[in-house]
Amino acid sequence: MSGKYTLGLDFGTNSVRALIVDVQDGHELASYISNYAHGDAGIVLRADQPHLARQHPADYLRGIEHAVTQAMEFAATDGSRAFSPRDVIGIGVDTTGSTPLPVDKNGVALALLPQFANEPDAMAWLWKDHTAHAEAEEITASAQKQRPAYLAKCGGRYSSEWYWAKILRCARVAPQVFEAAQSWVEIADWIPAVLSGTTALNKLRRGACAAGHKCMYNTRWGGFPDEAFLSSLHPGLARVRKTLPAACSTVADAAGGLSPEWATKLGLTVGIPVAVGAFDAHLGAIGAGIRESTLVKVMGTSTCDIMVMPNERPLTDIPGLCGIADGSVLPGYVGLEAGQSAVGDIFNWFVLSISPGGSENATHELLSAAAAGIRPGESGLLSLDWHNGNRTVLVDQRLSGLIVGLNLQTKPAEIYRALIEATAFGARVIMERFESNGVPVKRVVNCGGVATRSPLAMQIYADAMNRTVAISRSSQTCALGSAIAAAVVAGPERGGHADFASAMKAMSGAANEVYEPKPANVAVYERLYKLYVQLHDAFGVRDHRSTLSNVMKDLLDIRDAVRSH
Amino acid sequence: MSGKYTLGLDFGTNSVRALIVDVQDGHELASYISNYAHGDAGIVLRADQPHLARQHPADYLRGIEHAVTQAMEFAATDGSRAFSPRDVIGIGVDTTGSTPLPVDKNGVALALLPQFANEPDAMAWLWKDHTAHAEAEEITASAQKQRPAYLAKCGGRYSSEWYWAKILRCARVAPQVFEAAQSWVEIADWIPAVLSGTTALNKLRRGACAAGHKCMYNTRWGGFPDEAFLSSLHPGLARVRKTLPAACSTVADAAGGLSPEWATKLGLTVGIPVAVGAFDAHLGAIGAGIRESTLVKVMGTSTCDIMVMPNERPLTDIPGLCGIADGSVLPGYVGLEAGQSAVGDIFNWFVLSISPGGSENATHELLSAAAAGIRPGESGLLSLDWHNGNRTVLVDQRLSGLIVGLNLQTKPAEIYRALIEATAFGARVIMERFESNGVPVKRVVNCGGVATRSPLAMQIYADAMNRTVAISRSSQTCALGSAIAAAVVAGPERGGHADFASAMKAMSGAANEVYEPKPANVAVYERLYKLYVQLHDAFGVRDHRSTLSNVMKDLLDIRDAVRSH
Repeated sequence: MSGKYTLGLDFGTNSVRALIVDVQDGHELASYISNYAHGDAGIVLRADQPHLARQHPADYLRGIEHAVTQAMEFAATDGSRAFSPRDVIGIGVDTTGSTPLPVDKNGVALALLPQFANEPDAMAWLWKDHTAHAEAEEITASAQKQRPAYLAKCGGRYSSEWYWAKILRCARVAPQVFEAAQSWVEIADWIPAVLSGTTALNKLRRGACAAGHKCMYNTRWGGFPDEAFLSSLHPGLARVRKTLPAACSTVADAAGGLSPEWATKLGLTVGIPVAVGAFDAHLGAIGAGIRESTLVKVMGTSTCDIMVMPNERPLTDIPGLCGIADGSVLPGYVGLEAGQSAVGDIFNWFVLSISPGGSENATHELLSAAAAGIRPGESGLLSLDWHNGNRTVLVDQRLSGLIVGLNLQTKPAEIYRALIEATAFGARVIMERFESNGVPVKRVVNCGGVATRSPLAMQIYADAMNRTVAISRSSQTCALGSAIAAAVVAGPERGGHADFASAMKAMSGAANEVYEPKPANVAVYERLYKLYVQLHDAFGVRDHRSTLSNVMKDLLDIRDAVRSH
Repeated sequence: MSGKYTLGLDFGTNSVRALIVDVQDGHELASYISNYAHGDAGIVLRADQPHLARQHPADYLRGIEHAVTQAMEFAATDGSRAFSPRDVIGIGVDTTGSTPLPVDKNGVALALLPQFANEPDAMAWLWKDHTAHAEAEEITASAQKQRPAYLAKCGGRYSSEWYWAKILRCARVAPQVFEAAQSWVEIADWIPAVLSGTTALNKLRRGACAAGHKCMYNTRWGGFPDEAFLSSLHPGLARVRKTLPAACSTVADAAGGLSPEWATKLGLTVGIPVAVGAFDAHLGAIGAGIRESTLVKVMGTSTCDIMVMPNERPLTDIPGLCGIADGSVLPGYVGLEAGQSAVGDIFNWFVLSISPGGSENATHELLSAAAAGIRPGESGLLSLDWHNGNRTVLVDQRLSGLIVGLNLQTKPAEIYRALIEATAFGARVIMERFESNGVPVKRVVNCGGVATRSPLAMQIYADAMNRTVAISRSSQTCALGSAIAAAVVAGPERGGHADFASAMKAMSGAANEVYEPKPANVAVYERLYKLYVQLHDAFGVRDHRSTLSNVMKDLLDIRDAVRSH
């Protein structure tokens, strides 16, 4: 036993998780989840603005204290391994994103100041806040004209979920907040800075993950977008731009050492390093042991798909990929991010909203058991997995789900299986987009809820993608990734690891569960996938010769016209 | 009160209905349904031959006696109107079809002879018997080469459900039955002949309905198909051909007068005329008051759609229409038959097989109530109604159902409504095919189970077809049509009617229920219908530029390959 541990903090949509991990073998000694106090399960909503979703920064701070102290208590009483708080040698942080937060010149979140305590616009703008739809369109249109290169790294379109769109929205609708905000900080950057007392804007380190994927940061054009471009959108954006660093850091860098104040609060050693933060999926990829040629899929309600390529390898822009950013996952590697807009959500929709046969029959367990008895191709069904649009490679929220091959004998379990298959085919489209752009995929590692709960889905993924699919050991892969980053920033001198390669080798690793493609199934899925691609292209690719690419959009236009009456 | 009544006999798939109708005003005095005794609900099946479906002719005869005597007992005790069996002035008959029956030279059904009593091949080959699939293909291929005109009147393809395919099948698989059969008679022709003692082949009248729609009979080429063509399929078919008359009769003709034997059995007057029989949908159209420019839809699990055009009006072949036959509905008119392969069956599939929310929630009543609260276009869903293939206008059993526009908020009632809308759009495709070929549709009359039970569906049909939709008064429209034919063959001299125009005016008639298209809904459905047609053509039309016409077939090919392993 090394007797050294790191702490991974995983800030989710509704809660924060603290995970204590042994740096020698990745053993997860204890974890604790603390729910956010504000709003509806931690999300501040407003009835008159359905797209608004905010979080109060006080929840993050109270959550750290609660989760860490509880986790340490469990670790101390666990008994399986000796543990003392002084054995904790580093802290890592992952968060949702893009979730930017307005701060004053000291880096204090505005919502922590009395005058803004109840002002949603002064809180963190949660990733799923879509109030900035019009501003995103404006940024996209403006970049298309002025700075097309800015869009090439983020799938050709700037999203309403992202940093600049939200700031621009705030400037438009809440000028008093916008004026009071000296800068805006992604919570992935802000939380490590709080813990290490480095929130002052001249000290605050910004991570390459949030910056590269959400803020149009790229070293090729000198970092963050230039002031002239930002000023053309709103003069105030230039002020924000001036607070941003020339270069960003990776999770191999420390945001600082744990401040005396926080060390006291948490009962930890002053000065242990706090790693620069990154998004949950990116640190999840590290928790799952990402390496070259491995596609890590963090699978839950939707998926986030992560790959890495060594910096020195030539890499072109990849059409339809939502993010390509230097150092966003591992230092020395370009991080590539893709995603499926809905996976578990589609299965849940079928079980909960359609509820075939009623709640006693419509369970994932029963439907999976019945679906497992159906051979690939046997139902004659084929589905498109666009119930929540398509994030990669079509980048189109206005696409919708489709199912074909229905007949009077079609059974619910057949539809359930077809929906799983559709998400597997969707995964394969992304994989092929990587491969056709010089990023081969030799192995797939799935992690997250769907991966650990559905052996049926995992075998279907192995068969439909024709790849070995490994399931990540941890049910809390993102927090594990943060703990790995913590071990790297702690370094060998404190009992940590010298680099990510050794840290991941020791601490991460896919579980024993490995699904190999079955040749007979692969053969059938090859045929079905060709048909999937036919539907995908016909309905999803604009100006496709099929002339059906209008259908889904026209249906939404008709719906919107009807609803507006 | 005229005090005169006619008797309509409606031979369905599982039972025979006897209906007693007042000829003056169409009042339905009494009816009785007698179930067939043999097999599974009247259908003789064989476990080793899933496509086999036969009926025992003894069931028809016992059914007549049972249903008629019971109906007359109810009529006599009804009390609302004076009734005596001697007031019955005529009998009409409608049946399923094509349901041919092998007979000996006296017209006695072989299955009524001791040596064939339990031989399924010697029974009536029920309309839904699909054992003759290969023979139908053979006839189609042969006619395409030798007699293309034969196919032009039946949608371009000879069906496995039809007369010659079934006879050819019998010749191949049951030569002893085939040899014993001097001829084959549609039960629509055989039952009136039995009642009037005219089954001897030289006396037996064959109706234009069965002959024209199922037996390739047309006066343009001299009646039934020629012997040379039939001999090329099987030499024995020429023998059957020799037993067929040069010309066929319509339902305005009497098959004969009621025989003394049957008059005694039924307690009716000897010699009252028995009308030549026709298929249920065709006499249903008469029961619904068909006339020029009126489309009658007999709606149940599937639909049969009927129109008429005056004989003297020029009429080209109509691509994709399954039947065009002189006098098949009304004398002096060409009868046009189309159909949708599944309507009520699709709604039942969703309620019974998918059963969203379980059986307590998945009822037609509850889903209809919820669907009625959804405005056209509001769900963003669009469906194709091909769960059982497409009979008209694509004539393709290997098409399947499709639904598009699904999202994570989609509710069961929205899907239910989309399925109804899909069948309404399918109905409109048929209507437009009539209209684009010179057969205008000014009014739609719907009858049958779906029409009387679903006001929601009927309003959707009115809106989606942009036509007034009237619902036929009678819930037993086919039997009513038979009673109308009986009143015409009885003629004024017996207290009946001089012709169908006056008989239908007096006895039939759409009910007070009339659904007018609502302009706001029509406008939305115009837009949705354009999208429906896009899907229809892309998936359904062979060699369409969309290149998706392979998808549904390929899915079946894959399924069949998997199942055969």
